[in-house]
Amino acid sequence: MKVELIGHTPEPDFTTGMAALLTHSELQPHLLKKKDKKQVKNILDYVIKMGHTSVVEHSLFTFSISGVSRALTHQLVRHRIASYSQQSQRYVKLSNPHYIIPPSIKKHPDIKKKYDKCIEDLWAFYENMQKKDIPLEDARYILPNATQSNIIVSMNARSLLNFFDLRCCLYAQWEIRKLAYQMLKLVREVAPVIFSSAGPSCKTKKICPMDKKKCQWYPK
Amino acid sequence: MKVELIGHTPEPDFTTGMAALLTHSELQPHLLKKKDKKQVKNILDYVIKMGHTSVVEHSLFTFSISGVSRALTHQLVRHRIASYSQQSQRYVKLSNPHYIIPPSIKKHPDIKKKYDKCIEDLWAFYENMQKKDIPLEDARYILPNATQSNIIVSMNARSLLNFFDLRCCLYAQWEIRKLAYQMLKLVREVAPVIFSSAGPSCKTKKICPMDKKKCQWYPK
Amino acid sequence: MKVELIGHTPEPDFTTGMAALLTHSELQPHLLKKKDKKQVKNILDYVIKMGHTSVVEHSLFTFSISGVSRALTHQLVRHRIASYSQQSQRYVKLSNPHYIIPPSIKKHPDIKKKYDKCIEDLWAFYENMQKKDIPLEDARYILPNATQSNIIVSMNARSLLNFFDLRCCLYAQWEIRKLAYQMLKLVREVAPVIFSSAGPSCKTKKICPMDKKKCQWYPK
Amino acid sequence: MKVELIGHTPEPDFTTGMAALLTHSELQPHLLKKKDKKQVKNILDYVIKMGHTSVVEHSLFTFSISGVSRALTHQLVRHRIASYSQQSQRYVKLSNPHYIIPPSIKKHPDIKKKYDKCIEDLWAFYENMQKKDIPLEDARYILPNATQSNIIVSMNARSLLNFFDLRCCLYAQWEIRKLAYQMLKLVREVAPVIFSSAGPSCKTKKICPMDKKKCQWYPK
Repeated sequence: MKVELIGHTPEPDFTTGMAALLTHSELQPHLLKKKDKKQVKNILDYVIKMGHTSVVEHSLFTFSISGVSRALTHQLVRHRIASYSQQSQRYVKLSNPHYIIPPSIKKHPDIKKKYDKCIEDLWAFYENMQKKDIPLEDARYILPNATQSNIIVSMNARSLLNFFDLRCCLYAQWEIRKLAYQMLKLVREVAPVIFSSAGPSCKTKKICPMDKKKCQWYPK
Repeated sequence: MKVELIGHTPEPDFTTGMAALLTHSELQPHLLKKKDKKQVKNILDYVIKMGHTSVVEHSLFTFSISGVSRALTHQLVRHRIASYSQQSQRYVKLSNPHYIIPPSIKKHPDIKKKYDKCIEDLWAFYENMQKKDIPLEDARYILPNATQSNIIVSMNARSLLNFFDLRCCLYAQWEIRKLAYQMLKLVREVAPVIFSSAGPSCKTKKICPMDKKKCQWYPK
Repeated sequence: MKVELIGHTPEPDFTTGMAALLTHSELQPHLLKKKDKKQVKNILDYVIKMGHTSVVEHSLFTFSISGVSRALTHQLVRHRIASYSQQSQRYVKLSNPHYIIPPSIKKHPDIKKKYDKCIEDLWAFYENMQKKDIPLEDARYILPNATQSNIIVSMNARSLLNFFDLRCCLYAQWEIRKLAYQMLKLVREVAPVIFSSAGPSCKTKKICPMDKKKCQWYPK
Repeated sequence: MKVELIGHTPEPDFTTGMAALLTHSELQPHLLKKKDKKQVKNILDYVIKMGHTSVVEHSLFTFSISGVSRALTHQLVRHRIASYSQQSQRYVKLSNPHYIIPPSIKKHPDIKKKYDKCIEDLWAFYENMQKKDIPLEDARYILPNATQSNIIVSMNARSLLNFFDLRCCLYAQWEIRKLAYQMLKLVREVAPVIFSSAGPSCKTKKICPMDKKKCQWYPK
């Protein structure tokens, strides 16, 4: 899995802090811009801690993600307040088997061996079908969930906070959880105030939408 | 593929027609309701033909869809102005191989035979992994795009018009195009005015977003 | 203020309950439909109480609202996961002064008298400008926030739950709070399970996004 | 009216062009980034002209807008794929009359004089009510549509293209049309490829959603 932050609103904490300020001020925006940056960020911090996260929508974060499974991307694109551009399996011929191996399978050498063999066979069949004039978009029906994909994703900070709420949770599927923590690390570097307390909802809101009794993370 | 319309706003043409009327009338809604139904629908028809489709958002259509591939559902859920509840591969053990066979593969008995065998082997391995304590959510990494899924989808009429624009097109992938035409048939029965001229964008807007020269459907 | 529920997905509790069931079942939707209704609603109730409200999106509620101020509608249309058709001030000539009087003004007869007079004068000027060839869309610049408007609104149940969270709160502005409680009363009649515990976020989530110390509603 | 572009995704043409490239390429994103910038922009240009505008969602533009009427902002916030932070009339006391005068009124000195007087009287009453313990949120019911407001708005490029389609049209209301052209000028400077042919739908799509016969702009 390779995740990069390829673009974002410059100075996300200051820009969104200014938006917070504007709603309760008589000053025009060009005067707000001259405010002390530290003070603006303090206001943002206060506003977010009160739960008013609408202002952080004024910052967008664009990630390039590669080396993730189609199992992951099918979950990812369910987040609707976001933009996606994904490598097409209809138009892109995948020349070699690139696929994800879950850790639970890696742990069992015999299963892993069979898994590798199985996917190599699938790929040979995928290529074979194409040679026999099966269209690429149909040959790919045989490709597994494990198949790797590339995707560019943009989310605003509010949608990201929700994404982290759900996908940093221990009940989230391991691969998308791993992605979520990598994304969180990247955005925290450029927007420390917005994402200061981002994470699973048990940490951010003291709410567990799953079975907290069975969760080893949930504070006892 | 099995598609059913399991719920929708009652009288979609009249309800959305009333909304069209309200924007340009001094009358209060409870008086508008008493208007002649035929007249209201005529206004709706005029408004839609002018391209003002925002009013048709006041009607929602809920479909249950089963016997479609995960290749299809991954495309379907990219439509963001919609609601989805999909059978989870993380929680539901798929006890028998249920999968889609593309028509291009059905046509070649030898390829089809290999395709069937290949998927049966995958399923045996999927079940075998579970017996060896691989979690269901990881075992499913081996399942192919062809695997069947069930999904409940709700879209408002405006989002549906856009869905038909894109997915009734001859360039759309065959399986989702087949779904689109089945959905269109169902909604036209209950909302004939809204969907009277729904279909691919070459028909609705005389716009081809693909290569119209190569399209056998595009009017020469 | 006059609020009517002019349309909704039939049997919202059962339809959305079925969607909840489908995600964790191997059964196809047409078999789920035959399930005992009581049992389906119990599952829905459980799912909502855990905080998984995505399934209730499969029900839409359409309201006609009249006799509310433009101050209210400007707040209302800020809810983006919703559909609106509002009486246009650009196209509809408002022939008589229809306006809202806040209760705090009604309480002071002398202020109320001046308020009434002031708005009557505005209206006379509004009509006078039109006679002197000022376009309607410009003459209306003089009309006050208090001016009445009609609007048709559709929201799905998930968006409504969020609307009630925010607008049933004691800190919400009185007019939109009044609207929220009227809407809640109407939807609870047709979808008692979905909306059983809807209301301000202090009641639904034990979260106060405002100053709970100053709130007379907040449980001490 | 004062409009500033206070933040945007850096290099919008290149970032969104990369997203276009990724969908049809086997290359991973970090390799795409090394592509020749000119070539990437040419691909973007081609893709947009074909009507595939989803990739431009990967760029966000944030504007600060001041000196516009509440008549304008009520229209503006109807664009739902966008983020808004607006000066609150409930919390911000507007100490002096700041208001918009439509050009059609400016042209008639006698009407303008009465308009100015009328608004000054309103403001005096607004301040007077506050002194008599009418809450600010209720006193503002008397303020006119003409009252100035400040607002920070963020839209992605796809939503902006739609905004320009509708609001650069000669049938759009003059104030929001003026805003649209100022916004278009600003974004074209930083994203010339994305917005090269942005404008009213008669120019971008040869579609007129209004009465083209009466439009002096529509090409005869």
